[in-house]
Amino acid sequence: MIEDSIKKLLKDLRKSHISFRKAYEVLKDLPYQDLGFAKVDHHRGLRKELGEVVFCEGKTYEEVEKIVEPILSKYGQVFLTRADQEIYDRLSKKFKNLAFYKKARVICTATKTKVSKKGRVLILTAGTGDIPVAEEARITLEFMGNKVRTIYDVGVAGIHRLFDKRSELLSASVIIVVAGMEGALASVVGGIVSKPVIGVPTSIGYGSSFKGIAPLLTMLNSCAPGVCVVNIDNGFGAGYLASLIN
Amino acid sequence: MIEDSIKKLLKDLRKSHISFRKAYEVLKDLPYQDLGFAKVDHHRGLRKELGEVVFCEGKTYEEVEKIVEPILSKYGQVFLTRADQEIYDRLSKKFKNLAFYKKARVICTATKTKVSKKGRVLILTAGTGDIPVAEEARITLEFMGNKVRTIYDVGVAGIHRLFDKRSELLSASVIIVVAGMEGALASVVGGIVSKPVIGVPTSIGYGSSFKGIAPLLTMLNSCAPGVCVVNIDNGFGAGYLASLIN
Amino acid sequence: MIEDSIKKLLKDLRKSHISFRKAYEVLKDLPYQDLGFAKVDHHRGLRKELGEVVFCEGKTYEEVEKIVEPILSKYGQVFLTRADQEIYDRLSKKFKNLAFYKKARVICTATKTKVSKKGRVLILTAGTGDIPVAEEARITLEFMGNKVRTIYDVGVAGIHRLFDKRSELLSASVIIVVAGMEGALASVVGGIVSKPVIGVPTSIGYGSSFKGIAPLLTMLNSCAPGVCVVNIDNGFGAGYLASLIN
Amino acid sequence: MIEDSIKKLLKDLRKSHISFRKAYEVLKDLPYQDLGFAKVDHHRGLRKELGEVVFCEGKTYEEVEKIVEPILSKYGQVFLTRADQEIYDRLSKKFKNLAFYKKARVICTATKTKVSKKGRVLILTAGTGDIPVAEEARITLEFMGNKVRTIYDVGVAGIHRLFDKRSELLSASVIIVVAGMEGALASVVGGIVSKPVIGVPTSIGYGSSFKGIAPLLTMLNSCAPGVCVVNIDNGFGAGYLASLIN
Amino acid sequence: MIEDSIKKLLKDLRKSHISFRKAYEVLKDLPYQDLGFAKVDHHRGLRKELGEVVFCEGKTYEEVEKIVEPILSKYGQVFLTRADQEIYDRLSKKFKNLAFYKKARVICTATKTKVSKKGRVLILTAGTGDIPVAEEARITLEFMGNKVRTIYDVGVAGIHRLFDKRSELLSASVIIVVAGMEGALASVVGGIVSKPVIGVPTSIGYGSSFKGIAPLLTMLNSCAPGVCVVNIDNGFGAGYLASLIN
Amino acid sequence: MIEDSIKKLLKDLRKSHISFRKAYEVLKDLPYQDLGFAKVDHHRGLRKELGEVVFCEGKTYEEVEKIVEPILSKYGQVFLTRADQEIYDRLSKKFKNLAFYKKARVICTATKTKVSKKGRVLILTAGTGDIPVAEEARITLEFMGNKVRTIYDVGVAGIHRLFDKRSELLSASVIIVVAGMEGALASVVGGIVSKPVIGVPTSIGYGSSFKGIAPLLTMLNSCAPGVCVVNIDNGFGAGYLASLIN
Amino acid sequence: MIEDSIKKLLKDLRKSHISFRKAYEVLKDLPYQDLGFAKVDHHRGLRKELGEVVFCEGKTYEEVEKIVEPILSKYGQVFLTRADQEIYDRLSKKFKNLAFYKKARVICTATKTKVSKKGRVLILTAGTGDIPVAEEARITLEFMGNKVRTIYDVGVAGIHRLFDKRSELLSASVIIVVAGMEGALASVVGGIVSKPVIGVPTSIGYGSSFKGIAPLLTMLNSCAPGVCVVNIDNGFGAGYLASLIN
Amino acid sequence: MIEDSIKKLLKDLRKSHISFRKAYEVLKDLPYQDLGFAKVDHHRGLRKELGEVVFCEGKTYEEVEKIVEPILSKYGQVFLTRADQEIYDRLSKKFKNLAFYKKARVICTATKTKVSKKGRVLILTAGTGDIPVAEEARITLEFMGNKVRTIYDVGVAGIHRLFDKRSELLSASVIIVVAGMEGALASVVGGIVSKPVIGVPTSIGYGSSFKGIAPLLTMLNSCAPGVCVVNIDNGFGAGYLASLIN
Repeated sequence: MIEDSIKKLLKDLRKSHISFRKAYEVLKDLPYQDLGFAKVDHHRGLRKELGEVVFCEGKTYEEVEKIVEPILSKYGQVFLTRADQEIYDRLSKKFKNLAFYKKARVICTATKTKVSKKGRVLILTAGTGDIPVAEEARITLEFMGNKVRTIYDVGVAGIHRLFDKRSELLSASVIIVVAGMEGALASVVGGIVSKPVIGVPTSIGYGSSFKGIAPLLTMLNSCAPGVCVVNIDNGFGAGYLASLIN
Repeated sequence: MIEDSIKKLLKDLRKSHISFRKAYEVLKDLPYQDLGFAKVDHHRGLRKELGEVVFCEGKTYEEVEKIVEPILSKYGQVFLTRADQEIYDRLSKKFKNLAFYKKARVICTATKTKVSKKGRVLILTAGTGDIPVAEEARITLEFMGNKVRTIYDVGVAGIHRLFDKRSELLSASVIIVVAGMEGALASVVGGIVSKPVIGVPTSIGYGSSFKGIAPLLTMLNSCAPGVCVVNIDNGFGAGYLASLIN
Repeated sequence: MIEDSIKKLLKDLRKSHISFRKAYEVLKDLPYQDLGFAKVDHHRGLRKELGEVVFCEGKTYEEVEKIVEPILSKYGQVFLTRADQEIYDRLSKKFKNLAFYKKARVICTATKTKVSKKGRVLILTAGTGDIPVAEEARITLEFMGNKVRTIYDVGVAGIHRLFDKRSELLSASVIIVVAGMEGALASVVGGIVSKPVIGVPTSIGYGSSFKGIAPLLTMLNSCAPGVCVVNIDNGFGAGYLASLIN
Repeated sequence: MIEDSIKKLLKDLRKSHISFRKAYEVLKDLPYQDLGFAKVDHHRGLRKELGEVVFCEGKTYEEVEKIVEPILSKYGQVFLTRADQEIYDRLSKKFKNLAFYKKARVICTATKTKVSKKGRVLILTAGTGDIPVAEEARITLEFMGNKVRTIYDVGVAGIHRLFDKRSELLSASVIIVVAGMEGALASVVGGIVSKPVIGVPTSIGYGSSFKGIAPLLTMLNSCAPGVCVVNIDNGFGAGYLASLIN
Repeated sequence: MIEDSIKKLLKDLRKSHISFRKAYEVLKDLPYQDLGFAKVDHHRGLRKELGEVVFCEGKTYEEVEKIVEPILSKYGQVFLTRADQEIYDRLSKKFKNLAFYKKARVICTATKTKVSKKGRVLILTAGTGDIPVAEEARITLEFMGNKVRTIYDVGVAGIHRLFDKRSELLSASVIIVVAGMEGALASVVGGIVSKPVIGVPTSIGYGSSFKGIAPLLTMLNSCAPGVCVVNIDNGFGAGYLASLIN
Repeated sequence: MIEDSIKKLLKDLRKSHISFRKAYEVLKDLPYQDLGFAKVDHHRGLRKELGEVVFCEGKTYEEVEKIVEPILSKYGQVFLTRADQEIYDRLSKKFKNLAFYKKARVICTATKTKVSKKGRVLILTAGTGDIPVAEEARITLEFMGNKVRTIYDVGVAGIHRLFDKRSELLSASVIIVVAGMEGALASVVGGIVSKPVIGVPTSIGYGSSFKGIAPLLTMLNSCAPGVCVVNIDNGFGAGYLASLIN
Repeated sequence: MIEDSIKKLLKDLRKSHISFRKAYEVLKDLPYQDLGFAKVDHHRGLRKELGEVVFCEGKTYEEVEKIVEPILSKYGQVFLTRADQEIYDRLSKKFKNLAFYKKARVICTATKTKVSKKGRVLILTAGTGDIPVAEEARITLEFMGNKVRTIYDVGVAGIHRLFDKRSELLSASVIIVVAGMEGALASVVGGIVSKPVIGVPTSIGYGSSFKGIAPLLTMLNSCAPGVCVVNIDNGFGAGYLASLIN
Repeated sequence: MIEDSIKKLLKDLRKSHISFRKAYEVLKDLPYQDLGFAKVDHHRGLRKELGEVVFCEGKTYEEVEKIVEPILSKYGQVFLTRADQEIYDRLSKKFKNLAFYKKARVICTATKTKVSKKGRVLILTAGTGDIPVAEEARITLEFMGNKVRTIYDVGVAGIHRLFDKRSELLSASVIIVVAGMEGALASVVGGIVSKPVIGVPTSIGYGSSFKGIAPLLTMLNSCAPGVCVVNIDNGFGAGYLASLIN
C-alpha cells in the first residue's frame, strides 16, 4: 500500500502531474506519516469506539479540563476513568452530554453506543467490594459496542451460586473475573469454560492480601490454562482487552 | 438441550421405551454428566486440538509414562511440556509417532495438525534467551491449528529492528510477546497495534530481574491498554490463550 | 439418599403417582438442588449459630443496610464485623435488638446464645494492642455457643505471666493466640499444650513488623507442631474456626 | 493434683514417713517437675501416638542415628520426616522394625497403630505434584491412630472431579487441602463444608508461585471462613494438627 | 538461695516452727515465686532506672491514663514513648512532676536521674530528620543514669564532619548510630571504633528506602563487625540496650 | 601540594620565618584541613552552581527557616526541594529574591544562572503525571547553568511521538528519562542514543507498580547499555548528576 | 541532512539522472534507512570502540560461536561477557587473536585499543569478592579506549585506606564503585568527590544482603547526590556508561 | 597525645634534635598516621585477640593462602571463617599450628587464648541445626579471651528445657541467641534477663522461613527490649560483638 503510493508519486512527479514541492512535502514525512498512518488508522478504528482515554487520578480538575477539551472537539466524545463527582460537576458545566457512572468512576459522552460486536462478554465478581472495578470494565465494554452480562458476588466461598449460572458461563465469548482477597474465582472459571478468561485482581481485602498481591499471584499461577491477568484494579484495561478479543 | 433429553427420557420411560434401570442409570449421573457433558463437550472440542496436557517438570519418567498411556489410548494424541531428551528417548521406544521439540521442551504426537483458525498469531521475543519459551508457545499454537509467525530478538535496545516488521505486527490477530530482563517490548508493541497482546515474562536476566519479577511487573503496568500477562516462562499458557482468542 | 429419591421418583412416574411435569421439574434441578441441599443443610447448621456474616469495612452504610435487611428477615439474626459506631447508630434506629461491641467492632443481634459446645476456648493476646482482634474472636465464639476464657497481655517479654496461667492453658480445648510485633507467643503456647493452637497475627507494631508480616511468618514457622495460622487481624476467622474445632 | 502431692509430702515429712533429704529432693525440683510433669504428661499422651519426631533434612546420617537411638530405647518407637533411602538403608541395619514411606519421605516404626480417633480425616491434593506432602500428612495421621481418606488431583482446573466426591467432603471431620500453584482448592473446599479445613501450600509450581508464596497467600486470604494454614510443604504439621482436632 | 530457703522451710516445718498450712502456702507457689523472684529482682533492678515503659501509639488517652496510674503509684515514676502533646496536657493535669520531651515524643517523671554508669554513650545521626529517634534514645539513656553525648547530622555525604569528631568516637563506651535513607553511617563508624555500635534504621527517606528497609538491610550487612541492629525507628530500644551494655 | 606546604612550613620554622606556635597551629589541623580543603574546594566548585540543598519534606517551617538563614548569608543563594506554597509564603516574607517553582516543588534564589555548560540536557517523561519530578530535574539543571530541553508525555504507548523527536534525542549530551507505571521509556531511549541516559522511576501508577518498584526494576534491567538509575521520584538527583556529566 | 538527500533525489529523478527504479528503491526504505542511518551512525561510532557485545551466560557454546562469527567478519573485533574457559578454549581454536580475561570473564579481540578519551576512570571495590565485577568494567573501559585506575578492597570497614587515596579520587573524571554486602562505599565516595559516581551493587554477601538487594537499595538511597546505579553485578554496563560519560 | 607529639617534634626540629628529612617524613603522614594510629591502636588491641579475619566463602584456595601468609607473618596468628576441610588440609601443609573447627567452619592458630574478660558469654540455640552458627560464635569468643557457656537445643517448642537453665541465663554478662525457623527464643530470653541479648537469625527452616527472613523479622520486632540483631547466619559477628560488650 505504502509502496504503491511511493511508486505512484514518483511516476506522477516524472510525468509532472505533481509539483516537485508537493512531492517533496509528501515524501519528507513519509516514514513518519507511514508510521503515523498506521497509528492513525489504528487510532481511528479505536477512536470510533473509545476516543482518547483520560486517567483522572492524581490530576487536578484544571489539568483534566485542559486534556478533555481538544479530545472532545476532535472526536466528539471522551472517556475518563478514576473520575469523581467534583470533576463531573465542573466538567458538565462546561461540556454537554456527559454521563457519570459513579460506582465505576467513569465519565463519558452520554450517547449510547450501538452494539457492534457479535459475542457477549460476561463479567463476574467474587464479592460486592469488587463491583466498582467490574463496573469500570462494563462501561468500557458498552462504550466500545459490546453486549455485556454481569454476575456479581459469586466467589468460591459459595461456589454453588456460580454453578447455577453455568449456562451463562458457557455461552460467553470472553469472561472477565474481578476478584480480591484470594482471587480463586478466576481459576475455577478457567477450569469450566474454554474461552479466554481475563483476571482482574482487586485491592479488596486486608492483611496478607497486600493490596492485591495475593489475588494477582493466584491468577498468574492459575492451574487452568486460558487465564490471563491485567494490573490490580484495572477494570478499564480488562474491558478494553475483552473488547479487542470479542 | 439437557432439559430436552430429560423430557425425552421421562417420556420414553413412561412409554416403556426404555427400562427403569436404564433410565435410572442415566438420571443418576445426570447432574454430573450434565456438568460432565459440558466439560466433555468443552474437553472434546479442546482435545481435538490439544488432547490432555502433561507438565513433565518434577515428575519421574515412570510417572510420565503412566499418565501418557491412557491419554494416548483414549484420544490418539498427547502433548507434553517441560520434557527432556531422556523422557523422549524412553517414551518413543514405547509409543510410536512422537515428535520432540528440543528447544521448546515439548513432546507431542507427530501428526501435523491442519490449520483451522483464520487469523495468524505473531510471536515476538526480546532476546535470544527468550526463544525456548516462545517455541513452547509456537508448538502449542500449531498443534491447536493456528498459523504462527515468529520474529525473535527484536528487543527495545534495537527498536528499529521491530519497526522494520511493522506490517507483520499490524496484520496479526493476536500477538505474544516473550521478554525477560526489563520486559519493555510488550508495552511498545501494545502501543503500536490494536490487537490483544499476551505478555510472557521470562526468567532470563540476572541481578534485579529477580527471575522474572521485573518483566512481570513491567508488563502488568503496561501503559498501553490491550496487554495482558501470563505466568513467568509460561509459553504453553500464552499459546493456549492465543489459540482461544484466535 | 439422592439415589433413593431418584428411584422412587421414577417408580412413581411409571406408576403415574406423579405427573410427568412434576417429575420433570424435580429432576431438572436435581443436581443443583442436590448440591443446593447440601449447601442448605450445611448453611442451615451454620446459620443456627451465626447467620450470614457481613464484613462492613469498605461498604457504605446504605450497602450494609441493604444486606442486613433480608438476612434479619430470613434468619432472625445477623452478625457484622469491622463495624463502627455510625453504622450501629443508624442500623439500631431501623432494626431492634442489636448490640454493638465497640472494641471488637462487631454488631450482632443481642439475644444471648446458649452455650452448646462442650469444650472451652481460650484466647490469649501478647499485648493490649491485640485486644480488639481478640474481642472479635470472642464475640464470634460466644455468638456460636462456645464457652470462652480470655487472658490478655501475656506476651513473651514477661513470660512468667503466662506460666502463672498454665492450668488455664492445659484445660482449654482450643487456644487462639492473638499477637503482633514478633508473634512469638503462639510458638511458646504451642510448645506447652497439646491442643490445636490458632495463631492470629495482628498489624500491631511498627517498622519491620511490616503491618503483620513479621508475626505471620513467625507463626507459620512455629517450631511447635499443632499451630496453624489465619489472616492478619482476622479475629472472626479464628473464632469461627475455633468453634468448628470445638 | 500437684497441690495434693505437696500436701501429702509435707504430711509425710511431719509424720517422718519420708526423710528430710527425700522431701527436699522432691520439693527442690517441684516447680520444674511440676511444669515438667505437665510436659511429661502431655508428652506422654503425645508419645503414645507419635514418639519424638526427627526432622532429617540438613542432618548427617550420624546425627540422625545419634538422635534416634535414645528415642527408640525410651519410647520403643520413632518418627522421622524428610528422610531418604540412604538414611533408611543405614538405620534399618542398626534398628529393627522400621518402615520407609518413600513418597512421604517418612521413616517410622513399622507396628501398625490402632485406629483410636472417631472421625475421619480427608486429605485432598490439587495436583499430582502435591502428593508427597499429602503422603507425609497421611502417614503422620495414621501413626497417630486416625482413619484417613485421600483424594488426589482434584484441583480447581477440573472442579467437577471435586464435586463427584462431595459426600466424602461432607462426611469428614477435618479436611487437609494440599495445593501448590495458585492454591485455590482450599477456598473452594472451605466454601462447601463446615468442618475445619487445614491448608498446606506447597512449593509446587514455577515462576510467580515463588516457591509456595502464591498458594500461601491464597489460603491466608481465603474468603471462606474455617480455613487455616500451616507452613509451605509442612505435611507433618498439617497431619499432626488434624489429629489434635480429630 | 532458693534451695536454702526450701531446706530451711522443711526444717522449720519438721521442728514445727511454722504451721503445715504456712509451709504448704509457700511451697505451693514456690516455682512461680522462684521464677517470679528472679523476674522481680530483675525487674526491681530495671525499675530503679526506668519503671515500666508505656508505648502510647495506638492507645487512646483513657487507656494510657489507666496504665500510668498504677505504675506511678507503685514505682513513683513512669516512662512513656510515642507520646504527644495532647496526652501530656491531659496527663499533667492529673499527675504531677511529668516532663514532656516533644521531639523525642517521651513523657516521663521530671526528677533528674543521677548518672550511675561509668562510660559515656555517643549518639550520632546521619541527618536532621533522624533526630527525633535519636532524642528518644537520649532521654531513655539519661533516665537510666547514663552520660550521653550527641552529634547530629554527620552522614556520610559529608564524611569530613564525622572525622572532625573522631576523638568523641574513640572515647565513647557504646555508640548509637541513627540513620535513614541508605544508613551507611553505621558501617563507617563500625570501621573506625572498636566499641559496640547499635544501628537504628529510621523511616526517613523516600522511594526505594521503603520506610526503613534500605537502612535496615545496610546495617545488617555492615562489613564492619561490632555492629548490631534494632527495629526501624526504635530509639527507645537502642537507648535501653546501650544502657545495659554501658 | 600538601607535601610541598609541609616542607615549606618546616623550612620556615627552622629558619624562624614563622613562630613555633604558628607552625603548630597549622600542623595540628593539617590532616583535617587537608581533607577539609579538599572538601571546601570541591564544595566551592559545587556551591557556585547550587549552594547547599535543603530537602523540605518532613521538616517544619521553623526548621527550614533555621537552615536557610546561614546558607543564604554565606553563599548568597539557596536551593530547596520538596517545598510547598506555605513554606514559600513564609520564607519570602523574610528573605528577598526567592522564586517558587510550584510544579517542581522547588524554592530557590531568583537570579537567573548563566548557561555555563556546553552540552544540552534533554528531559523526557512518559506521562503527564511524571512532569513534577521532571520539573525538579529541570530547575536543578538550569540553576547549575545547563541548557535544558524538555519533551513530556512521550511514553511507549504511543511511541511514534518519540520518534518524531529523534533529532532532539540524538543531539542531547545527556538524557533524563522520567517514567512511572512500567518505565519502559528509558530502555527504548537507551536503545536509540549513545549518550548517558539517567532513568528516574516515579511513584506514578497504581496496583502492581508498587509506588515505583516496577519502573525501578525495569530501568535497572534495561537491556540497552548506557542507562543508569537514581532513586524513585528523585528529580533533583537526576538533574544534579546530569549537570556533573554535562 | 535527510531532507537534503530527498530533495536531491527528487531533482535527480526529474532530471533523469537516476532511474525510477533506483529512486523507488532508495525512497521505499528511507524512513527505516533514516532511522537506520541514525542507528548505524550511532552503532558505527560505538562499534569502533566495542563492536557488538555477546552475553554468554545461558548460551551453549554452539550458540555463542554462531553469534561471534558474523560479528568478527563484519567488524574485525568482538566482545563477550560472562564467558568461561571452555568457551575460550573452543573459540580460540576457530578464531585467532582472542584474549581471555578470566577474572572478568571477558573474551575479546586481543588488539590493544588506543587510549582515546581524555579523562581517567577510577574503579573502586569494597572487598576482594567484588573484583570480578570490577574487572569486567575495567576491560570494557580499556577496550573502549579509556585510561583506567583501579583501587580494590577499600570498603568502609577500614575507611582510612580510602582516604589515603583521596588524590586519586579527586582527579578521576568518573568513578565506578563496586560493592556488595551493605554497599556503603558509593555514598562515602559520592560525599567526597563532585564527579559522577556509578554504583554497581554486587551479589557478594550472605543472609540479608539478599543477593545484592541490600547494596542496591543502599546505593539508590545514597544521601550524596551525583550517585547513580546499574543492575546488580553489571560491571559491563557500568564500564560502558562510564566510557560514554568520559 | 597526637598534639603532644607534634609539639615535641617541632621543638626537636628547631633544636635540630632531628633532621629536617626525619621531621618531614613523620609529619607528611601525620594525618594518616594519626587516623592510622587510632586505627592501628584500635587494630593492635583487636589483633591481640583476633588478628585479621578472613571470610573464605567464595574465595579460591589460592586467594585464601595469599591473604593468610602476610597476616601470619605480621601478627603470628590468623582467624578464618566459612572455611572447609580442603582449605585446612592445604593450609596446614604450609603453615604450622593451625586448628580446624569443622562444625564452626573456623580455622585459626591453635594456641589457646588466655581468658582475659571478666564476664561469661552464654550461647543458646533453638535447635540442633543452629549449632554450626553458634559454634562459629563460640570459637570467635574463646579466641578473643572470653569464657563461654553453650546451651543448645532449647527452642520455645519445649520451653521447660530453657527454664531449667534459668540460673545460667541470669548469671551471664551477654547472651547470644541463635535461632532459625521462627526465632522466638530471642524474645523469650530477652523477657527473662536484663543483660544484652544478641539475636542471630539462621537460615535453618524451610518454606516461609525464607532462608532466615522469618527469624530476622521476629528478632527485630522483639517485644522485649535489650535485644539486638546481626545478619543471618553471622555467628562470627555475634561473637565479636559479644566480646566487645563483655
